[in-house]
Amino acid sequence: MSRKPMVRPGGRSARVQESVHAAVRALEAEAGREALTVPLIAARAGVTPSTIYRRWGDLHELLSDVAVERLRPESPPEDHGSLGADLAAWAEQFLEEMSAQPGRAYIRDALLGDDTNASRCSAYAAEQIEVILARAAQRGEAAPEVETVLDHVVAPMMYRILFRPDGLSPSYARRLVEELLG
Amino acid sequence: MSRKPMVRPGGRSARVQESVHAAVRALEAEAGREALTVPLIAARAGVTPSTIYRRWGDLHELLSDVAVERLRPESPPEDHGSLGADLAAWAEQFLEEMSAQPGRAYIRDALLGDDTNASRCSAYAAEQIEVILARAAQRGEAAPEVETVLDHVVAPMMYRILFRPDGLSPSYARRLVEELLG
Repeated sequence: MSRKPMVRPGGRSARVQESVHAAVRALEAEAGREALTVPLIAARAGVTPSTIYRRWGDLHELLSDVAVERLRPESPPEDHGSLGADLAAWAEQFLEEMSAQPGRAYIRDALLGDDTNASRCSAYAAEQIEVILARAAQRGEAAPEVETVLDHVVAPMMYRILFRPDGLSPSYARRLVEELLG
Repeated sequence: MSRKPMVRPGGRSARVQESVHAAVRALEAEAGREALTVPLIAARAGVTPSTIYRRWGDLHELLSDVAVERLRPESPPEDHGSLGADLAAWAEQFLEEMSAQPGRAYIRDALLGDDTNASRCSAYAAEQIEVILARAAQRGEAAPEVETVLDHVVAPMMYRILFRPDGLSPSYARRLVEELLG
């Protein structure tokens, strides 16, 4: 369903993506989100508007794509020496980032795009959790499945961020992890 | 934060809301969502566009409000004689409705409005669960807190509907309930 082709690093497609994403970020910082239009973004990125329409379909889809890139984790989760500590630290940081105003805006933008974009957000979380679970296995610790962590740690945090944002705190993230690991 | 005032049933405010919501539903069915504009909706509803702007702010907020109304449950959850059966039946139905195309579109619309609209969606689920838990208490069954059911039954379903929609099935809903109730 996605219009976005596979992107070969360093190829023309990757260069177009990078310059268009950079144009969106720069224009959004300068003029605000409401001012963004496809012709404006194209002019800043040095591409034609039709390049943007062909690749992303419309402005919503482009903003969704940029939002997902901003949600991509920049580094693997920290190693605190145990599954419980790793998962609690990761969950606390995830909740803090995603419940802050920019994080919430990026999540909503990501959900406005096609299903591929929302799936990429979830895949980022799953990849981080897999790193934590693999470390636990190397230490010989018993560990749950990644899907179980998604259901009982990530999902409650995301549900509350989107639907019940009042009163979220780091202790909520820690409690979800403690309940899961028993 | 919401522009929407308290609505007294039968008052002018309630009549305006009902006629504007009905106009949105009718126009959407006739002409499709992309054709909706505030002047078109106002004309059909017999109000001025400024009435709509004053009350809802913009088209997104109005569509979000209409979507939330469509997500309002029409009846209390069925009584199947036990907490496990009641909760499993409710969760299965919730997953079926929300993961279908109209349900997903309404959820996304609801999330586009102000936080009040998303909170109302969650409040509808919480109210249905409270009915189920109150019945369990009357039967003398041990029952979890409503917030726990939201975290470990509703949240995983909603997270997967929004972010990982592949392969959702009624058995997933039942499994979440079984795991919660042990």
